[in-house]
Amino acid sequence: MTHPPQQSTASLPLASRATDLVGSVIDSSTSLLAKQTHDIVRFAMGSPAPEAIPTRALAQVGAAVMGEHSPDAFDYAATEGDPALREALLDMLAGTTDATTPERLTITSGGMQGLDLAFKLFVDPGDLVIVESPTYTNGSATALSYQAELLEAPVDDEGMDVDRLEQLVEKAGRSPKAIYTIPTFQNPSGSTMSIARRKRLLELARTWGSAVIDDDPYGMLRFEGDPMPSLHELADGDPLVYSVRTFSKIIAPGLRVGWVDADPGLGQLLINAKQAMDTCTNLPLQRLVAGFLRGGYLQDHLVTQRAVYLERKQAMQAALQEHFAGRARWTDPEGGFFLWVTFGDEVDTEALFEPALAEGVAFIPGNAFSPSKRFPNALRVCFASTRPDRIHEGVARLARAVDKVTK
Amino acid sequence: MTHPPQQSTASLPLASRATDLVGSVIDSSTSLLAKQTHDIVRFAMGSPAPEAIPTRALAQVGAAVMGEHSPDAFDYAATEGDPALREALLDMLAGTTDATTPERLTITSGGMQGLDLAFKLFVDPGDLVIVESPTYTNGSATALSYQAELLEAPVDDEGMDVDRLEQLVEKAGRSPKAIYTIPTFQNPSGSTMSIARRKRLLELARTWGSAVIDDDPYGMLRFEGDPMPSLHELADGDPLVYSVRTFSKIIAPGLRVGWVDADPGLGQLLINAKQAMDTCTNLPLQRLVAGFLRGGYLQDHLVTQRAVYLERKQAMQAALQEHFAGRARWTDPEGGFFLWVTFGDEVDTEALFEPALAEGVAFIPGNAFSPSKRFPNALRVCFASTRPDRIHEGVARLARAVDKVTK
Repeated sequence: MTHPPQQSTASLPLASRATDLVGSVIDSSTSLLAKQTHDIVRFAMGSPAPEAIPTRALAQVGAAVMGEHSPDAFDYAATEGDPALREALLDMLAGTTDATTPERLTITSGGMQGLDLAFKLFVDPGDLVIVESPTYTNGSATALSYQAELLEAPVDDEGMDVDRLEQLVEKAGRSPKAIYTIPTFQNPSGSTMSIARRKRLLELARTWGSAVIDDDPYGMLRFEGDPMPSLHELADGDPLVYSVRTFSKIIAPGLRVGWVDADPGLGQLLINAKQAMDTCTNLPLQRLVAGFLRGGYLQDHLVTQRAVYLERKQAMQAALQEHFAGRARWTDPEGGFFLWVTFGDEVDTEALFEPALAEGVAFIPGNAFSPSKRFPNALRVCFASTRPDRIHEGVARLARAVDKVTK
Repeated sequence: MTHPPQQSTASLPLASRATDLVGSVIDSSTSLLAKQTHDIVRFAMGSPAPEAIPTRALAQVGAAVMGEHSPDAFDYAATEGDPALREALLDMLAGTTDATTPERLTITSGGMQGLDLAFKLFVDPGDLVIVESPTYTNGSATALSYQAELLEAPVDDEGMDVDRLEQLVEKAGRSPKAIYTIPTFQNPSGSTMSIARRKRLLELARTWGSAVIDDDPYGMLRFEGDPMPSLHELADGDPLVYSVRTFSKIIAPGLRVGWVDADPGLGQLLINAKQAMDTCTNLPLQRLVAGFLRGGYLQDHLVTQRAVYLERKQAMQAALQEHFAGRARWTDPEGGFFLWVTFGDEVDTEALFEPALAEGVAFIPGNAFSPSKRFPNALRVCFASTRPDRIHEGVARLARAVDKVTK
C-alpha cells in the first residue's frame, strides 16, 4: 500500500462551506507551543492554571467511578446527559443566576458543542449573526462553519456596545438571526456587559426575533465587584436566550463536559442534533463531574481559584504598568482569565509574535479575535495560568520583544 | 424567575435544516428502555455485552492515568489527538488492513463525529448521498442534518448491491457527492461487501468524483470466515476513501473515542472543522485508551469477545430456527453484533414493538433503518449484548408477541 505525499484536495468533492472552515489561531498555538523546546512564559492559551486543576480530587473521584467495575459507567449515555450529572448540576445551579429546570438542560461535550448546536439550529447560509469585536475566535469560527455572515459589534469597558447595534443592523438591511455574546469577563477583552446594556440587548433581540447565544465560561470566576444577573434571568422566560456553559474553566478543560440551558421548545431538536454530532457525551467523565459536585469539591475549589486569579491579574497589571506605562493601555477585568492590551500603531502584534516567542513569551495577536482583523495593535494575555513571578518575567520578555520590533 | 411550560418554537429563528434533524429511533430507545421497570431482554441497542466491557483493566489503567496527578492529563488536547494515543493506535493498526500514517489520522469523539465531519466537509444542501438500504440510522440522520438528498441502494448477502448503483444514479440525473457504506458486518443487516463489489464501488466513485465514507465499527470483531481488505487498502492511495473507526464496540462506547483515516489533503480542514465542533476529544479517556493499548489488553480482549459473540450469534440463529422456521428469514453475519430478520407481509414490526415490549423483549423495527421506510416487515436484533440462555428466552417472547399481532 502506498501513501503518496500531501495531495491536492482538488479531486475531493468538498462542500462549499469547506472554505469557511477557518481554524483557530488559539488551538493551533497549542500545537505550535508544544513543539518549542526553550523556556516560554505562556500567556497564549485560555487554560486554567496547572496548579488550579484539582488533580487529587479528580483522581480520587475518578478512581471511585471506575472502581465500581460497572459496565454501565462505560456504556452509551442518554443524549441529554447522565441523570447523576444532570441532578448534581441542577442542585449546583439552584439559587444562582443560572438556576434552571430539567427540561431546559442538555449536557454537551464542552461549551464548544453548545455553540456548534446553536449555530446548527439557528443559522442558514448567508444569515446575519452579530458577534462582539473582538470576540472568541472559535465561537465566530463555528458560526462561519455554518456560513453565517458576521457583523462585528464593538466592545468597550461595559461589554458589547449595544447602542451601536441598531445602526449596524440598519446598515446591513436585515435582522440578525442570532447575537453571539460573552457578556461576563469577555474573551478576549475581559470586560463585562452592564445591566442596562443586557436589558437593551434583550429588547433589540425581541424586536428582531433574534436568538441570543449567551456564552459564559468564566462567570463563576468573579474575584472582584458585584455579581450580574444572567441574560436568561433578565429575559424572564423569553425563549430567545440560549445559554452555553462549561466545566472547562472551573474544573478542567480536558473533560469536555458542558451544558446548554435553552427553551424547552428546543429540547428535542437539541437532542436530535446532538445525536448526529457525537451520539452522547462521554459517560465516565460525566460521572466524574457528578461525583466532584456531589463530593462538595467545587465550592472550596472556586474560593481558592478566585483568590489565585485575582493575585495574578494584579501581578499582570503591575508588570504592564512597569514596562508599558504610556506605551499601551489594558483592561481591568473583575474575573475570568484575560487582559486585552492595546498598543499604538507602531506595534503590529502579528509581527511581534515570532520575536516574542524567541524571547520566551507567547500571547495571541489581536487580529485573531476579529474576522475582519480590526485589532492589529492589540493582543490578548491570559494571566490565569502563570504564577506571579513568571508573569513579571513574561511581561519583561514581551517588553524586550516590543523594543526590538519598534526600533 | 418564571419558567413557562413547554413553549412553541414558533418564535425561535430556526435554520431551515432544523426540520431535517430527524433524531434516532435507536438513541430514543435507550431512554425509553431506561424507563421500563419489568424484565426485558434487550436486543435493541448496539452496545457490547456488559460482561464484554473490560471494566477491571479500564479501572486499573484509568486510575494509573489519573493517579499521576498531572494537570496535563486534564488540559485541552491537541485537536488531531493526544500523541500517546496516536502513537499507540498507529502501532495497533500496523500490519492490518487499516494500517495508516500520522498525516492521515485524526482522533474523533467516537465514530459518530467522524461521520459528522465527513458530511460537514462533503455535503452542501441538496447534494446527493448514496446510503445503503437498510442503513445505520444515525449515519443517514447526520447526512440529513446537512440537508443531503439520500438515495437508497439495496443491500443483499454481499453488502450494497453495487451493480444497481449506476442505474439509480442515472435515474437521479446527477452524480452522488458521497457514498456512505458500512462494508463489513453491516448495521443493521450483518452482511459483508464482497471484494468484487468493493472494487467496483471504488471504480464508480472515481468516475463520479464521489467521496466514499467507509464506516467500520465492527471489522475487528470477525468470528468466522476470512478477513477482507478495507476500501482504503483497495483504493491504494486514492484520496476519495474516508474511513471512520471507533473504539466503541471493541473497548466501550461510553469513552467516545474514535478516529478518522483520510487523505492528508483533508488534514487541516478536518482539524478546523473539529475545532468548531468540540475543540478536542476529552483527554483523560484518550490517555486511558492509549494505556489500554500499550498495556496489551486489546488483543486478548478481542480473542475473548469474538468467541463470545460467535456463541451468541449461533444461539440467536438456533432460537430463530426453533420459533420462526418457515415464517421468517434472517441473515448469517460472520462478525459484528446484528442479525436482520424479515417476516412476511402479515407482520408489521412497528406495530409489533409495543406488544413485544409488554412480553419483555426489545428490538428495533426495520423502518428505522430506511429514510423512506422500506422495511415494515423486518427488524434488527443485536445478539451481542445478551447471554445465550436469555437470547432463547427473548426470541420465545418475540414469538409470543408475533403470534398475538398476527392472530
